[in-house]
Amino acid sequence: MQSAETKLNKNSLLLALRRYSAAVHNMEQTILLPSLLREVPPDDALDCDAAEDASDLYQSYLLLKAIRNTIDCGLIPADDGKAKKNAALNKSLEPLLEEDAEVLFHFHLRGLFSVIGNLTKKSQNVTEKYLDIIGISK
Amino acid sequence: MQSAETKLNKNSLLLALRRYSAAVHNMEQTILLPSLLREVPPDDALDCDAAEDASDLYQSYLLLKAIRNTIDCGLIPADDGKAKKNAALNKSLEPLLEEDAEVLFHFHLRGLFSVIGNLTKKSQNVTEKYLDIIGISK
Repeated sequence: MQSAETKLNKNSLLLALRRYSAAVHNMEQTILLPSLLREVPPDDALDCDAAEDASDLYQSYLLLKAIRNTIDCGLIPADDGKAKKNAALNKSLEPLLEEDAEVLFHFHLRGLFSVIGNLTKKSQNVTEKYLDIIGISK
Repeated sequence: MQSAETKLNKNSLLLALRRYSAAVHNMEQTILLPSLLREVPPDDALDCDAAEDASDLYQSYLLLKAIRNTIDCGLIPADDGKAKKNAALNKSLEPLLEEDAEVLFHFHLRGLFSVIGNLTKKSQNVTEKYLDIIGISK
């Protein structure tokens, strides 16, 4: 019998969401003292731009957990700044939003798949960085 | 003990995806002769624009099944026409795609949540229309 995971195609959104949750779970289990991440700058060498607004890895840690909760528990209202940016995104899309639902579905599916992949890498990076800080290298 | 479904918030994407799969499953179980949907025009009174490209309800039926398979099994390459529309959507977003991952995550999450809600309604509508055609009204 195959496990639920092997039955899912590697490009499946459900698998990507599951992997993200697992990466954040691992991050939470590993990082026993999140405050050690304070004032540690995010690694710019990473090719993902997750949590650009985060001033340090502690902020990234909180953000990655909040995003996991949103996936698991539902949409939450964005704060004013984020809502404004979302409104700008929607505004620029307006003429195209009249496209059919299939196009829109694939657009958002691919977009979410891609951003979740980046956030998963970011989560793994925060975990590795924490291990570096406490002197445990993989 | 709560069921997995009741534990999920009603705004959860996972719940929305599960509801869509259930609606398509119900549609497949109900529609024993999909060919009866040929040349039946989509109901314009519906406030959702799922499958605008579909010339009849049979095309909608096939499209809704294909989208369910994409959710369950993974991303598939879009055909040329759809790929072009997707490229146009991405192009118009380019300046905004440099926003941080959190904004992008919420944008695509909300977008997918909304389009999946519309497709679920569409799927229920195709099922009801089929029942009308064969003379069984709810």
